Amino acid sequence: MRHIYYCPLRWADMDSQGHVNNVVYVDYLQEARVDMFAVHAPASGGEDLAEGVVVVRHEVEFLVPLVFRFEPVRIESWVTEVRAASFTMSYEILDELPEGGRRVFARAATVLTPYVFSDQRPRRIHPEERAVLKRFLEPVHEVSR
Amino acid sequence: MRHIYYCPLRWADMDSQGHVNNVVYVDYLQEARVDMFAVHAPASGGEDLAEGVVVVRHEVEFLVPLVFRFEPVRIESWVTEVRAASFTMSYEILDELPEGGRRVFARAATVLTPYVFSDQRPRRIHPEERAVLKRFLEPVHEVSR
Amino acid sequence: MRHIYYCPLRWADMDSQGHVNNVVYVDYLQEARVDMFAVHAPASGGEDLAEGVVVVRHEVEFLVPLVFRFEPVRIESWVTEVRAASFTMSYEILDELPEGGRRVFARAATVLTPYVFSDQRPRRIHPEERAVLKRFLEPVHEVSR
Amino acid sequence: MRHIYYCPLRWADMDSQGHVNNVVYVDYLQEARVDMFAVHAPASGGEDLAEGVVVVRHEVEFLVPLVFRFEPVRIESWVTEVRAASFTMSYEILDELPEGGRRVFARAATVLTPYVFSDQRPRRIHPEERAVLKRFLEPVHEVSR
Repeated sequence: MRHIYYCPLRWADMDSQGHVNNVVYVDYLQEARVDMFAVHAPASGGEDLAEGVVVVRHEVEFLVPLVFRFEPVRIESWVTEVRAASFTMSYEILDELPEGGRRVFARAATVLTPYVFSDQRPRRIHPEERAVLKRFLEPVHEVSR
Repeated sequence: MRHIYYCPLRWADMDSQGHVNNVVYVDYLQEARVDMFAVHAPASGGEDLAEGVVVVRHEVEFLVPLVFRFEPVRIESWVTEVRAASFTMSYEILDELPEGGRRVFARAATVLTPYVFSDQRPRRIHPEERAVLKRFLEPVHEVSR
Repeated sequence: MRHIYYCPLRWADMDSQGHVNNVVYVDYLQEARVDMFAVHAPASGGEDLAEGVVVVRHEVEFLVPLVFRFEPVRIESWVTEVRAASFTMSYEILDELPEGGRRVFARAATVLTPYVFSDQRPRRIHPEERAVLKRFLEPVHEVSR
Repeated sequence: MRHIYYCPLRWADMDSQGHVNNVVYVDYLQEARVDMFAVHAPASGGEDLAEGVVVVRHEVEFLVPLVFRFEPVRIESWVTEVRAASFTMSYEILDELPEGGRRVFARAATVLTPYVFSDQRPRRIHPEERAVLKRFLEPVHEVSR
């Protein structure tokens, strides 16, 4: 199951080239992730997936430049792998076109690990968190590339 | 040849977890890149490598959390591949330790392509730009991983 | 007439104290302003009020700390004075409370001047722009302080 | 006594108009403030003036547009008033010109109050903090306006 987040752009997201700066896309992914886990996790014991994780790795592929507009951009996010102490997410930042089809601005993947900030160390994924993550699990070969 | 840039941190770079946020690292890479090409390129016909490029792909690996301090962090950047219309850079964000050795906070790679913003299209790398890029070219197997 | 803009917060807007950072409020004002003039001006000859202005002066009063949540915050903005080459806006960033009444997080005022970026100089307000601004004009003594 | 901070600019500080965005100046003030109190306060019992304060009010006057360059911009900051539970700072963001004189990009004033984040409430200024603030106190009529 993919999580759908409509991410509002800000005028300030544009750089001096008039495009949404590449750095800002990475914040869009973060906002989608917070939305995904804060909306779905609290009811199910996965409270810490929104804020109690750190990013281990990012891969971002930029396909089409994005320019500021008032319509939010759609971000689909899902889980592609769950391991003992980390999990991997995929994302697509896109517009659904009125005539059908999609314009994909960027694709990305992130590896995250639960983190105990008070101890400054990673930790294993709890069973309740694993259950939350499994709801979003989608085999990689189904990813529309 | 690696380009060395000492990147000043800002207090505002920290997120509510008290660490430099993962998004901000990607801006650090951008600042290192602008420094690299603006400092070295203008004398040599490669003026557009600093601002006239777009990011095609980012890979960022986060190794050690970074917390705000007044000392800048060292960013080494170099070129690993030059193609007809794109090139690839690598970076390490690190501290050199007083006792010798290095603490590497993050490693990254970026694929960039020269871009004609007025026409909204990528373009080929000019010969003078290729010469600038070649000065920073370092075979991948020498990368200290 | 006040312009109403519902400003979405971002998780990244929080600083290491866990509050929306004071700097980010100033971006919220900017986003409200772009929304106000881009939505209302284009039909009426005031196209440049959204992006073709520079800020001459800001005054921002912070009343209640704002913490990240998924609900946007309401920003009311209006015009308090129109001069030959500048105008003044006021804003309130607030929640309307379910039980009635308002929680005001911040109040602000901004002086702006139309600016010709290609020539790097301010210019006078055009008559069509004046008409747009007048629609939002509200005498200062009515401001709910 | 004025505190001098040389604030490095970032390429990303520019907005789509090619100037350092007005919002970013307010972050520059914050960075100058953190530098001022973190550098001078720790030895003297004023540890909390850098991070344990909240902004009550900002006034910022923008005089000359600032464009990205590699040279840091000079920020002078000082204290103009100390009250029981708040204090006021002034700032100038400027270049010292080689031919003598100064180009002032912005002037600003900020009212701050010490804040107990764990209790979400302001508090009075401690005597040791008052001593730190007094070192930077400069009567307003000496301010070079």
